[in-house]
Amino acid sequence: MAVYTDVSEDQLKSFLTEYDVGTLLSCKGIAEGVENSNFLLKTTTGFYILTLYEKRVAAADLPFFLGLMDHLSQNGLSCPLPIPRLDGESLGELAGRPAAMVSFLDGAWLRKPQAIHCREVGRAMAEMHVAGADFQIRRENALTVGNWRPLWDGSRTRADEVQPGLRAEIDQALSDLELHWPQGLPEGVIHADLFPDNVFFIEDSLSGLIDFYFACNDFLAYDVAICLNAWCFEPDGAFNLTKGMALIDGYQSVRPLSAAEAEALPVLSRGAALRFFLTRLHDWLTTPEGALVVKKDPLEYLRKLRFHRQIGSSVEYGLRRKDMVS
Amino acid sequence: MAVYTDVSEDQLKSFLTEYDVGTLLSCKGIAEGVENSNFLLKTTTGFYILTLYEKRVAAADLPFFLGLMDHLSQNGLSCPLPIPRLDGESLGELAGRPAAMVSFLDGAWLRKPQAIHCREVGRAMAEMHVAGADFQIRRENALTVGNWRPLWDGSRTRADEVQPGLRAEIDQALSDLELHWPQGLPEGVIHADLFPDNVFFIEDSLSGLIDFYFACNDFLAYDVAICLNAWCFEPDGAFNLTKGMALIDGYQSVRPLSAAEAEALPVLSRGAALRFFLTRLHDWLTTPEGALVVKKDPLEYLRKLRFHRQIGSSVEYGLRRKDMVS
Repeated sequence: MAVYTDVSEDQLKSFLTEYDVGTLLSCKGIAEGVENSNFLLKTTTGFYILTLYEKRVAAADLPFFLGLMDHLSQNGLSCPLPIPRLDGESLGELAGRPAAMVSFLDGAWLRKPQAIHCREVGRAMAEMHVAGADFQIRRENALTVGNWRPLWDGSRTRADEVQPGLRAEIDQALSDLELHWPQGLPEGVIHADLFPDNVFFIEDSLSGLIDFYFACNDFLAYDVAICLNAWCFEPDGAFNLTKGMALIDGYQSVRPLSAAEAEALPVLSRGAALRFFLTRLHDWLTTPEGALVVKKDPLEYLRKLRFHRQIGSSVEYGLRRKDMVS
Repeated sequence: MAVYTDVSEDQLKSFLTEYDVGTLLSCKGIAEGVENSNFLLKTTTGFYILTLYEKRVAAADLPFFLGLMDHLSQNGLSCPLPIPRLDGESLGELAGRPAAMVSFLDGAWLRKPQAIHCREVGRAMAEMHVAGADFQIRRENALTVGNWRPLWDGSRTRADEVQPGLRAEIDQALSDLELHWPQGLPEGVIHADLFPDNVFFIEDSLSGLIDFYFACNDFLAYDVAICLNAWCFEPDGAFNLTKGMALIDGYQSVRPLSAAEAEALPVLSRGAALRFFLTRLHDWLTTPEGALVVKKDPLEYLRKLRFHRQIGSSVEYGLRRKDMVS
């Protein structure tokens, strides 16, 4: 839940004079997202989401994020569309923070996604990869293999407080990934955080993707690996092969994976598990007890990492055997 | 901010089959209110607020609260209208909690209300008092003079931790109020929590009142005293006489205060200050440090109580001198 910054009526009114959106009728803080402050605005012209970017999002990256949403929308992907200001810019300032308005997207995120939803997510992710192909701004992934060691160094000495033996296990897993991380796979713009709370559905149909604030340029198949981690494990830790198959099939119905990508899924999935493990561990160790944030358990991702270590081939994730032939 | 209970898509879908509101298009947790879990729903028929009543609201009181909103709406007051279920009831159950849907009310609450807004609040409060006159269900005020001593007894021994000397000062103030609390003033249904976050405005016009979960039968003028506390002090603790005048004038434009009510405003205002002081002090001393709730400072209401102690006549709150003649 997240409203970090409250906004007064004068600040908001003055902000809205920069837009052609009519008169304000309602403004409610939304208890979703953990990075920014979000408000649902109703005006005489419709509903909008107003986002104030808090310090965890680098202001220099905002033209990439907003430009990407604009580009993807214009290329047919259903995602929030930045509302231009009267001066043509997407980005303004409110309560001392960078701020933007985007269109309101129908749909709600699923607390208990099923295999049919995993297929839809796979398909939409591939459509995003295709639609993003000719986006002109680049943003390096700040949370990929080269960034994990500095992140780990910040938590390493306290890791055994969380679970005895954790330090040695992650030392080993990280060295292994640094050594075996793939090279030369197809690259493009990835979402990089396509968890269930960032995918909206109306009944069983996917209605859109949101929250592009981790999007970056990286291996497209790494996005698939992130989704295998985020969508295909059950609450008890079991990997659901039916969901894995649905997700990969949905993806390949739009963009077939190359043989090299198919081959790389296990190492990419280990990497994705380690990436979320490391940021959660960092937050776990550094978030003060009284903070108004729900801390996410890093050990969920340790268990996923261990699962991926015993995977022999992508067939075990649900890739069809015929697609494994190189 | 408050979403205490999360709701799964299956639970919500099943809940909505009890209503004639169309298909669900969106559901977002709202970061407002501290007693209940609130969601903004969009369906094919419009926008609604869904409330799950958490344990601080007694289930036995819900027919009073929902019936009151219905009654007030039908008598021309702008407030949320409970949406009837297919079986005609207003109250259902969701995620193991009593739950209800009400209409979406345009407007936003003011972070920095001015005197013109105080006048509107006074007027709307009086309209509520008039509209509630023939409401048939009764609910005793669980937070009036007779309830303060047990509440105080729960905090008394630890009061000096919050501020040295607090125990003796409140002992004295409470005994004084118990002795001098008025009797026989006009009674009716009062809102009893009409703070700025429960009053919506569109630009400078009041668009409605919300959150009737403290409403009860009590002296009508006690509601005025609560509003003098809630609306007419500045952040630095100063009483703003212009706002007081506007609030009282607005009220009297619909329902003139009797001489006895006018006379009683200082003691009622001390009582209102003590009531909010006591519940805030209780929460301050009992809310665990890590809870996802912003604790409100009880000392704000100690300062207001001290202010009211030096008031000689209601003219000092902004009552016109001519209205003081009995």
